[in-house]
Amino acid sequence: MNAPTDAKFLAATATVDDAAVKPLPNSSKVYIEGSRPDIRVPMRRIAQADTPTSFGGEKNPDVYVYDCSGIYTDPAAKIDIRSGLPALRAGWIAERNDTEELAGPSSAFGREREADPKTAELRFNLKRKPRRALAGQNVTQMHYARRGIITPEMEYIAIRENLNRQAYIESLKAGGKTGEKMLELLMRQHPGESFGASIPAEITPEFVRSEVARGRAIIPANINHPESEPMIIGRNFLVKINANIGNSAVTSSIGEEVEKMTWAIRWGGDTVMDLSTGKHIHETREWILRNSPVPIGTVPIYQALEKVDGKAEELTWEIFKDTLIEQAEQGVDYFTIHAGVRLPYIPMTAKRMTGIVSRGGSIMAKWCLAHHKESFLYTHFEEICEIMKAYDVSFSLGDGLRPGSIYDANDEAQLSELRTLGELTQIAWKHDVQVMIEGPGHVPMQLIKENMDIQLKECHEAPFYTLGPLTTDIAPGYDHITSGIGAAQIGWYGCAMLCYVTPKEHLGLPNKKDVKDGIITYKIAAHAADLAKGHPGAQIRDNALSKARFEFRWEDQFNLGLDPDTAKDFHDETLPKESMKHAHFCSMCGPHFCSMKITQDVRDYAEKQGVDAQAALQKGMQEKAIEFVKMGAEIYRKA
Amino acid sequence: MNAPTDAKFLAATATVDDAAVKPLPNSSKVYIEGSRPDIRVPMRRIAQADTPTSFGGEKNPDVYVYDCSGIYTDPAAKIDIRSGLPALRAGWIAERNDTEELAGPSSAFGREREADPKTAELRFNLKRKPRRALAGQNVTQMHYARRGIITPEMEYIAIRENLNRQAYIESLKAGGKTGEKMLELLMRQHPGESFGASIPAEITPEFVRSEVARGRAIIPANINHPESEPMIIGRNFLVKINANIGNSAVTSSIGEEVEKMTWAIRWGGDTVMDLSTGKHIHETREWILRNSPVPIGTVPIYQALEKVDGKAEELTWEIFKDTLIEQAEQGVDYFTIHAGVRLPYIPMTAKRMTGIVSRGGSIMAKWCLAHHKESFLYTHFEEICEIMKAYDVSFSLGDGLRPGSIYDANDEAQLSELRTLGELTQIAWKHDVQVMIEGPGHVPMQLIKENMDIQLKECHEAPFYTLGPLTTDIAPGYDHITSGIGAAQIGWYGCAMLCYVTPKEHLGLPNKKDVKDGIITYKIAAHAADLAKGHPGAQIRDNALSKARFEFRWEDQFNLGLDPDTAKDFHDETLPKESMKHAHFCSMCGPHFCSMKITQDVRDYAEKQGVDAQAALQKGMQEKAIEFVKMGAEIYRKA
Repeated sequence: MNAPTDAKFLAATATVDDAAVKPLPNSSKVYIEGSRPDIRVPMRRIAQADTPTSFGGEKNPDVYVYDCSGIYTDPAAKIDIRSGLPALRAGWIAERNDTEELAGPSSAFGREREADPKTAELRFNLKRKPRRALAGQNVTQMHYARRGIITPEMEYIAIRENLNRQAYIESLKAGGKTGEKMLELLMRQHPGESFGASIPAEITPEFVRSEVARGRAIIPANINHPESEPMIIGRNFLVKINANIGNSAVTSSIGEEVEKMTWAIRWGGDTVMDLSTGKHIHETREWILRNSPVPIGTVPIYQALEKVDGKAEELTWEIFKDTLIEQAEQGVDYFTIHAGVRLPYIPMTAKRMTGIVSRGGSIMAKWCLAHHKESFLYTHFEEICEIMKAYDVSFSLGDGLRPGSIYDANDEAQLSELRTLGELTQIAWKHDVQVMIEGPGHVPMQLIKENMDIQLKECHEAPFYTLGPLTTDIAPGYDHITSGIGAAQIGWYGCAMLCYVTPKEHLGLPNKKDVKDGIITYKIAAHAADLAKGHPGAQIRDNALSKARFEFRWEDQFNLGLDPDTAKDFHDETLPKESMKHAHFCSMCGPHFCSMKITQDVRDYAEKQGVDAQAALQKGMQEKAIEFVKMGAEIYRKA
Repeated sequence: MNAPTDAKFLAATATVDDAAVKPLPNSSKVYIEGSRPDIRVPMRRIAQADTPTSFGGEKNPDVYVYDCSGIYTDPAAKIDIRSGLPALRAGWIAERNDTEELAGPSSAFGREREADPKTAELRFNLKRKPRRALAGQNVTQMHYARRGIITPEMEYIAIRENLNRQAYIESLKAGGKTGEKMLELLMRQHPGESFGASIPAEITPEFVRSEVARGRAIIPANINHPESEPMIIGRNFLVKINANIGNSAVTSSIGEEVEKMTWAIRWGGDTVMDLSTGKHIHETREWILRNSPVPIGTVPIYQALEKVDGKAEELTWEIFKDTLIEQAEQGVDYFTIHAGVRLPYIPMTAKRMTGIVSRGGSIMAKWCLAHHKESFLYTHFEEICEIMKAYDVSFSLGDGLRPGSIYDANDEAQLSELRTLGELTQIAWKHDVQVMIEGPGHVPMQLIKENMDIQLKECHEAPFYTLGPLTTDIAPGYDHITSGIGAAQIGWYGCAMLCYVTPKEHLGLPNKKDVKDGIITYKIAAHAADLAKGHPGAQIRDNALSKARFEFRWEDQFNLGLDPDTAKDFHDETLPKESMKHAHFCSMCGPHFCSMKITQDVRDYAEKQGVDAQAALQKGMQEKAIEFVKMGAEIYRKA
């Protein structure tokens, strides 16, 4: 943490770097309006070129993709991180008439920091006062849902999750006979295996409400983070991913962290956790929140620990509680709270290979041991719920005893904690407080499904939110991949959100390149999971990209991918000339022979020969060949 | 292809680059001797530091890992790529007395090239003459196996697959009480789920023989590639990976391809396929073979196509046959032959999204359509078997109709071809010719197991060798990851060898960085699969690395990983000082608070309190806390 540099950065630059705000190639930001004009759901629309005439010459439809990047990729928006983002939910929150604006922060620490001249230079210039539920009111989305209320947030989410699929279908239908044919091609999707999920063909606002009401999904949406664009986490919705950012005592600055956040959402981070542990946690978080269109999560015990100079044994419930209020009033959308790290489970970790690897878990373990007492997070759990429901902060019940090695996977410590998280879920739900459950860690593939199944059962289908899991320990430097393998699988089995792991895991703090590598890997895992579950419309993007690939529409292939820049760079390494992006061949085979071209011959041939191409093929053949075809046809009929 | 540069490189440099021959850090090459002195099986031995005294101070055992890198990483060896590698199997082949040395190449093309002054500069200076089976003899490993003969190759493989586990165990046992405790820790492994594989606790030469005899494993070992270090591919052995290299008409040179080969095996490529398509395929292959300690695979139809100037319709059985003999006499260990692309299946691809994407498949499709005839690969299959058994070339029955997109996965064309490959397997086995089966391609996760199960059934457990599969199409630039996810799963389900995919897939030809990224990703997938199957000893490396990680033995953590260089670089980006590699903290948490350190406190605490730490914990607690512990203890007992 470098205070002077930070202050300079924040005063002078005030913008995020160009790379983070440039719209993606051939993409435009569109807003789908809901039932009222202030429900405007952002999507990214990717325009495509026409199919070359040699392949049929048809017009290809615009493809709509989920867009987490906020107004940063909207050329019409003015970005000034000193002012923060517009408070798009402010009206919805106010009109519910169940909150009040406070005179100022009600946490002791929040007031202290506001008055501290030493950090004045670093402070975000927030003019808005914090809000809180009126006495006796509960302002959680779950509370509304259970009373049958469909909030604007819920409607927003329903529109968002459907990805403008109807418009895509209609634009194809408008294309007459060719369009109908394309519709069939582009909308086809393999049946999924969802392992008991209940994913409807179309997400309605009522479905969002019902899932939130029964606790199977959460909408992390603190009333003090009105800048956030509503999103949902639940097994019957698109699988989401989280990106961790945050400075440590050793390195990085506020400016860098804001930049990492805008960078993370550009590439598809659905939520961001600020895990800062340095001296200016409070100020860093404020800058991130005010500029973040995605929900922000934190681990409040990290900051509480800073307040007692890193001495875990000096933590108290009062300090922790003040920290919760401080952060809730800044607008944090979900709190990781390791309330399942209970005293009796701690000795279970003594025989582990890697003990307790969760930072929050080990802080609480140290406290419990020092005091010979049950964790104050556990004993004060209902009080925590009272705070959560006054701001609508969601629980992310932390897995403080998650395994830190393949050796420790699915052991008694981990599973005992998971069962406790299930009990705590029911307590939170009694208060209408939203809950998700954090999960492993390091788990070999054959034990991943067991994790998911136990979680679904013990935690009553509260959304699971897992780190990886890493499927082997032997690849430091590549743990985005060891864990991406596990993440794809657990996402398929029912996990609702995947916490990314970067290549720097176990080795150092991620830089921007690492953040991007982590995000893209996890977008792949999440999408592979959506496909495998049979999420409606999940295959649209795969189909569109494959069609572009087949037709040598290189630019469209790049643009429909998760990372157009890298795809284009890789292509250009071998065939840099602009003309090569219209070439009907690639560097793998060269211009002389190309398998894609031959397929077109097959297609033309089949077309020419009429519907029964197989019979036609037989016509011109010698006796022996006919015999073979008969044999083949038999095999084919058996299939 | 750049002939002058090549000639210059080959004449002058004559060595591979330093980076490819430097031994890996703290690693030494050891050779385990078999029943005779000329069976010397290479392994990499990784030495570890002692555990810091604060963690117990014990001596950590050397870890042995599989080593594909040949003598390149042996400091005692003299590397001169102009001379090639020593012919370690020459004696074994000769002593079987079933082969003869030919006067020269027996293929027309081989003779023509030998006499061609234009390529003289480019030619490897091979003094050895090609060998062939004596008339009426069959020299395949399968043939020996079926006659009950355990070849030196089989014994070599048995030693190799066991990874010197016994020595590891004994070195621990020698450590007295501490050693026994460590043994328990370091050898523990989760039970696997092998989906019907039959993996023994120890691989014996007889087991190798029996698996080869029944066709469930292959040993690709052409008698004209005596430089190769024997290895095995089968579902009851360690999962293997293949790296593709090769120039194209558009780019790269012979020197680069040799360098890619040495680079690929350094990082763990078990076999290498030379997919060159340029002008000097024959010469490039010779250089690669003479310098490769791993089996080399090719797709002979690529070269046959060059011989007819890229005009698929001009291919003939005679040209193809001559190519097989040419390559078999050079020493190619396995041939990809797309004999399952049958005429009646071709029209099935007309309605695909991406048609036929296999280069070999589309060449044969074009030929079949042009001639209205069944494929000559299919009609001449038994003649091909005759060639294979005269040199011991293994079949890699190509999946010419593999899906090129998620859309096309598991369609009738793909599955019809797979069934035909099963029929061809039985024909090959009739000739005692070794067979593996190539597989997809692009397949969403929920359809991967179906692929594997159908392959096992239809192809009678002949080893499956798959490309990926890619689990989504939407990430060009990251297809090592989209496919690594699928590869780990299919490896777990029973696939014997995983063909790597590099980040350049679909976009361009891989450079050295891409080759390494592909290899490491696939080593991860293969190892994750070994762990999940419960392969004996698979967890040893994970356990050792995790122990090093927990004890802050940074260098050991790097060195036990798949890529020590990258791990170290990543660590040093944040904490570059040498002293930091002995620091008992990392950049993630900083020196102030560290979860690993706290775990040590837990351990000390549990130790101090005696065996029943749980009861001890209760002692100092207040009434309410005791109540909680009782509840917790109950949950714990239930577990």
